[in-house]
Amino acid sequence: MNTNFIYDIPTKVYFGENQLSHLGEELKKCGNRVLLTYGGGSIKKNGLYDKVAQEIQKAGLTLFEFSGIEPNPRHTSINAAAEICKKENIDVLLAVGGGSTIDATKVIGATAYYDGDCWDLVTQKSPITNCLPIVTILTLSATGSEMNGTAVISNLETNDKKGIKSSKMLPKVSFLDPTNTYTVNAYQTACGSADILSHLFEIYFNQKEEMYMLDTMTEGLMKTVLKYAPVALKEPNNYEARANLMWVSSWALNGFVRCGKTQEWSCHAMEHQLSAYYDITHGLGLAILTPRWMEYVLDETTVSKFYQFGTNVFEIDKNLPQMEVAKKAIEMLSDFLFNQLGLNRTLSQIDIDNSNFKIMAQKACRGDVIQGFKSLYTEDIQKIFEMCL
Amino acid sequence: MNTNFIYDIPTKVYFGENQLSHLGEELKKCGNRVLLTYGGGSIKKNGLYDKVAQEIQKAGLTLFEFSGIEPNPRHTSINAAAEICKKENIDVLLAVGGGSTIDATKVIGATAYYDGDCWDLVTQKSPITNCLPIVTILTLSATGSEMNGTAVISNLETNDKKGIKSSKMLPKVSFLDPTNTYTVNAYQTACGSADILSHLFEIYFNQKEEMYMLDTMTEGLMKTVLKYAPVALKEPNNYEARANLMWVSSWALNGFVRCGKTQEWSCHAMEHQLSAYYDITHGLGLAILTPRWMEYVLDETTVSKFYQFGTNVFEIDKNLPQMEVAKKAIEMLSDFLFNQLGLNRTLSQIDIDNSNFKIMAQKACRGDVIQGFKSLYTEDIQKIFEMCL
Repeated sequence: MNTNFIYDIPTKVYFGENQLSHLGEELKKCGNRVLLTYGGGSIKKNGLYDKVAQEIQKAGLTLFEFSGIEPNPRHTSINAAAEICKKENIDVLLAVGGGSTIDATKVIGATAYYDGDCWDLVTQKSPITNCLPIVTILTLSATGSEMNGTAVISNLETNDKKGIKSSKMLPKVSFLDPTNTYTVNAYQTACGSADILSHLFEIYFNQKEEMYMLDTMTEGLMKTVLKYAPVALKEPNNYEARANLMWVSSWALNGFVRCGKTQEWSCHAMEHQLSAYYDITHGLGLAILTPRWMEYVLDETTVSKFYQFGTNVFEIDKNLPQMEVAKKAIEMLSDFLFNQLGLNRTLSQIDIDNSNFKIMAQKACRGDVIQGFKSLYTEDIQKIFEMCL
Repeated sequence: MNTNFIYDIPTKVYFGENQLSHLGEELKKCGNRVLLTYGGGSIKKNGLYDKVAQEIQKAGLTLFEFSGIEPNPRHTSINAAAEICKKENIDVLLAVGGGSTIDATKVIGATAYYDGDCWDLVTQKSPITNCLPIVTILTLSATGSEMNGTAVISNLETNDKKGIKSSKMLPKVSFLDPTNTYTVNAYQTACGSADILSHLFEIYFNQKEEMYMLDTMTEGLMKTVLKYAPVALKEPNNYEARANLMWVSSWALNGFVRCGKTQEWSCHAMEHQLSAYYDITHGLGLAILTPRWMEYVLDETTVSKFYQFGTNVFEIDKNLPQMEVAKKAIEMLSDFLFNQLGLNRTLSQIDIDNSNFKIMAQKACRGDVIQGFKSLYTEDIQKIFEMCL
């Protein structure tokens, strides 16, 4: 083991209830002209919008807003919001929402410094040279976007969904108040939890030598999701459950447990094709894909990691044969996703058939291969999609 | 559970071998006049000093130095180094060493902005208003000082050892190269590992409601020390073992697993008296104290946490009675510290008798009480010291 890395996650987090009293002072450090970005308006229904507007007013800042950011955020919306930044000389962006809103806001911040279409930045045709400072108020525990520099953007004209990463887009400050997720419905809570688990799986299932310490911490994060997601479904206002899911979502994907690892992600690459073609919820796509991907890649070369997963996360008896533990772990994960979280088990159930599988498989591996836990070629990916029908 | 917290750990970490090529650029961001601080000169023997001096020269920076920082760093040394900072207009401090050197360097940086004795800052007679930027190169995995704002300083004139914390003293950048700990001898490796474990215990053994996620991660950090400390003792040049211990040392005490917790620490308060009076190695004092403290506080009100510890960290059979698991866990910890790590089991073995126990007990609780996992009054602390004879 000898993988070097740079750890650099300077995002400041205010965690807990009633921390919004610090919002004004944090925004002020970045300037006076604030663009508030959000999605479909649920924050107007649950009162969060009013609280935010009040703090901004109290701090004597000038408020602009851009709403209507989509669940899979579109490049067209980002271009429109970046125009406002340029025209109104915005100093700081305040994203209030889940991963989609925060992702979109990052690219808005970068596009504010770019003379052209944001899609050029997303596709890395042009580099991200700068970004407006970003403050976030998280309302959905899922993507970890509140504490990382990554954004995933969709282009519906070309059926593309692409990720882009830059430390320049890292949020300066994030407000994580678990009570802001009380109104997240059961379906979105389940999808968010599946998304968190998937981030952990993509990092954890690795054949390269790696730091044991990070594995133990990743297992702890997984156990936390398994324990609390069902609680949050049954009791939406359970603070303990919402708090654990929220802080796990950040740590699953802020880069810490991934330190020093370089492999490509498998299920995310496949899922991005599903939501690019069918605009489904990201976490649902991941939930359907993950157990099939696990079944497909399980063999003598990968079984030891599944054994570690099964015994440490699901506490399966260590004395059972490795392969038996591995299969039982996949079964227990399926039970969790489809029975306990109540997510749909198949693509057929959500009206997706095999008609685009070939082109989606090609796109998922960019016509070549996903160098993941096991290498996946176009035909492998196509088979995994078919297992999901 | 409803404990708010602010997470704010902006220290950038270069982890791994051959990262020193970044040293010049990082120092340069802070200025041109560098004061290198270190301890007894082991860095001259193992070649690290030369490498550092070379990088500083390459970057065209001006090098000053202050050596001879003690294992329990003295306020007198800090005053002397702070004088150099003032006289030479130092821009940035570069601490090369373990926790003692880094702790001392933090207070040097704060005293550079203070017109008086550093002990005023340590005792909070005067506030820390500013601090020179600090870069560290860690050579001992133990205190976590490389990623937090805490310093522990000794005043031998008054037999005092006191901790002080300020976000202003947080290192800007830390270089963590596990190969820099290859030359740490078995005794110091054992003491450092005991210190790391103690930090985790002080945080973990808590009667208040807390975040399950952080408990699972703390357990992972403990398991990592239990797994790799014995490996590092047997194979000092084992990269995997040294790397795990090094990254654990930072995460055990950078504030993350402690988020939202407020209780006082018990064993550290007692140990600071031991090393203030007898100048013993901090980690050794903690190793001797911890199992006795555990035995002393174990009762019906605390047993459930010990049960969690025993089953999750030592993997003791969950079906055994709670009290049996708890006692077995303390036994297994003693075996680890005194047999596997080979540390002395008693104070008598290191020539400490009971003559100062009363005054040390009074000082440990400041004449009142330690509000820890269980409240400890002077007579409790005195009894625990006696159990260590």
